Amino acid sequence: MPKNALYAQSGGVTSVINASACGLIEAARENKIKVFAGHNGVTGVLSEDLIDTSKESNQDIAALHYTPSGAFGSCRYKLKDIEKNNNECKRLIEVFAAHNIGYFFYNGGGDSQDTIYKISCFSQQAGYPLICIGIPKTIDNDLPFTDCCPGFGSAAKYVATSICEASFDILSMAATSTKVFILEVMGRHTGWLAAAGGLASKNHSNVNGAPQIILFPEIAFNQELFLQRVELCIKKYGFCSIVVSEGVRNEEGKFLSDCDLKDAFGHTQLGGAGTIVAQMIRNNLKYKCQLAIANYLQRSARHIASKVDIEQSYAVGKAALELALKGKNNIMTTIVRESDKPYRWSVGSAPLEQVANMERKMPRSYITEDGFHITEECLNYLTPLIQGEDFPAFENGLPKYVRLRNNSVPKKLGSLIN
Amino acid sequence: MPKNALYAQSGGVTSVINASACGLIEAARENKIKVFAGHNGVTGVLSEDLIDTSKESNQDIAALHYTPSGAFGSCRYKLKDIEKNNNECKRLIEVFAAHNIGYFFYNGGGDSQDTIYKISCFSQQAGYPLICIGIPKTIDNDLPFTDCCPGFGSAAKYVATSICEASFDILSMAATSTKVFILEVMGRHTGWLAAAGGLASKNHSNVNGAPQIILFPEIAFNQELFLQRVELCIKKYGFCSIVVSEGVRNEEGKFLSDCDLKDAFGHTQLGGAGTIVAQMIRNNLKYKCQLAIANYLQRSARHIASKVDIEQSYAVGKAALELALKGKNNIMTTIVRESDKPYRWSVGSAPLEQVANMERKMPRSYITEDGFHITEECLNYLTPLIQGEDFPAFENGLPKYVRLRNNSVPKKLGSLIN
Repeated sequence: MPKNALYAQSGGVTSVINASACGLIEAARENKIKVFAGHNGVTGVLSEDLIDTSKESNQDIAALHYTPSGAFGSCRYKLKDIEKNNNECKRLIEVFAAHNIGYFFYNGGGDSQDTIYKISCFSQQAGYPLICIGIPKTIDNDLPFTDCCPGFGSAAKYVATSICEASFDILSMAATSTKVFILEVMGRHTGWLAAAGGLASKNHSNVNGAPQIILFPEIAFNQELFLQRVELCIKKYGFCSIVVSEGVRNEEGKFLSDCDLKDAFGHTQLGGAGTIVAQMIRNNLKYKCQLAIANYLQRSARHIASKVDIEQSYAVGKAALELALKGKNNIMTTIVRESDKPYRWSVGSAPLEQVANMERKMPRSYITEDGFHITEECLNYLTPLIQGEDFPAFENGLPKYVRLRNNSVPKKLGSLIN
Repeated sequence: MPKNALYAQSGGVTSVINASACGLIEAARENKIKVFAGHNGVTGVLSEDLIDTSKESNQDIAALHYTPSGAFGSCRYKLKDIEKNNNECKRLIEVFAAHNIGYFFYNGGGDSQDTIYKISCFSQQAGYPLICIGIPKTIDNDLPFTDCCPGFGSAAKYVATSICEASFDILSMAATSTKVFILEVMGRHTGWLAAAGGLASKNHSNVNGAPQIILFPEIAFNQELFLQRVELCIKKYGFCSIVVSEGVRNEEGKFLSDCDLKDAFGHTQLGGAGTIVAQMIRNNLKYKCQLAIANYLQRSARHIASKVDIEQSYAVGKAALELALKGKNNIMTTIVRESDKPYRWSVGSAPLEQVANMERKMPRSYITEDGFHITEECLNYLTPLIQGEDFPAFENGLPKYVRLRNNSVPKKLGSLIN
């Protein structure tokens, strides 16, 4: 009997992670491999809560291509270390064995690659034959060994489009009203997503180079230099448009969001980096300042996804299945950049062992010397990743997204007792 | 010599106000009328800072159709009352006379309609022949006498799409992570834009009816009932997705954003309604809660504009010019709903005198009895307004928007001395 495959989604979802699921499941169907999915990532595997994807129509699987979020549910869950508690790993092997799983695919970021690496090691130790392949995914773009991370290009396109549009807005208003606009974006400890805002500055449709300021976690925040720069922009351009990364830290390495900042009334101000920076400008420069916080919108906005990103997401899922069938093991599929202009890419792979728990920050050469913008080198890196549109179908004015049936696989084991 | 027309944009801009400019200018070109534009609204008229739109190519004027924001600059400026200071009105007449202006068009919301009404009254008093026509525009949808306000449908489509996409996201995450997602939207004292979030609940692509809660300025906020409802949603659906209007007030009529709320550390929490509500959930229910603040993004997101809204914006601009040429005066162009299903509309008009400074709140019958959602009646009203897409062209991965030359008209007068 041919082995079944198990696929699961993990960590913060993206607008295109389902395209990876689609690539993998379509390739599996071609190869007559049955795919089960973990409901809510590895937690569903632990609780033997599996979904039978073979019950979904070809049409619904194809519609995953156009549907944001994790169709099978994702999770934030860190497996316990094998040395401390190998009950979890034993349980996983039990579930794999009960359902004749020969291939395990985990679709996620750095922590998730660590999870699959642990599972791979343990299955080897336990003598259970299991091919383990990681599929990359994160809007943070912080995985090593891959030129970019599926999910990033679409979030980047959202951020660049949004700051472009909002900058057109503030240009209209600045003469008598708002002088500063701030967009807070995600990215954890790295500035990749904030950097994407810089694409709007360099585009034909740019307004006065906006955003004129980008704040990166890689550059220690200096309040005085920052406020000077804001003032300078307003003098020069009439307004100042800013993209700030949630992960910005001050010179002591403390997140801005953890710093005490008093408002005009002496109240302590709490909030994310955007809130803090906005209040700083209002208190010190007395300008009218507007703040947008993109939050989940940037990682779920499938309606403005990048075509390149969707293609890459699909490809890393499809390749994962195909490489597994060729007997490759213990790898994560990657995107390899073949050339910048014209942009050419292919799918490669990297050893799981080296990928797990590594975080790729922006190279210093991608950030201008003053620390407030991106360089041409960065622009060359980012530009190909937001190319092309692949709009979802719309029905009744809204995007048409699919919800799968998600039929459960009948359980064969008792509950997990920790 | 035929009279010239003067057009200006006022108040917060939208993603489609330039479509009204496009409609007006294209109609004027057909009728051989020259259009000057006030740079930054009426403030540009006061300072004789006028733009000669005849210097723009047909192609660039057509591109206004696809470009968000106010291409000639907008303003937040309230004319002084004639009784208190008629220098301003005198000055306006001087500028009109110097540039042979026979038609004045002001494109804005309630305050702007008041401005044009004042100008109309004064020009009559002063014996200066001037046809004054208001063109409606506001994402707040709070102008009376028009079925809807150009700009609203596109912002509504943005809000509904965004909460739909973010709700897909939180559905994936809720099992082990975020349980509550909040989107704060604009709308000033009215809940029209928040109501638009409800379109996502009723759509085929809805996830568990999300957003399950909408907070309207029209309904006094009750913390206890609200928190109970959040808890109920999480029990029933696994997560809770919320749209909150910036203008929500408590039972004493105080804006949530003006209320003191202590955080877990006893710090006073400041922020908009979304920030307050998020902190309230974290403090009282201890759930992980994410907050997005759409801010300018919702009013500038031309990439996801409503086709119906664009067509209406164009039409009210075009009709304003045509009605002026027919000698109509002292009116604002409006949208008249001819039928719901199929949706049919036409352009009408309302007397400026009655429009100025009136604010149209949501009817109580548009809000469910419990105050947390929209009714079928509201759904029937809103649904047609977000229909259709009219994507801008994209170049190099980003929307292609136009920036006009905005050549100045040579000044003929000295500076204004107040």
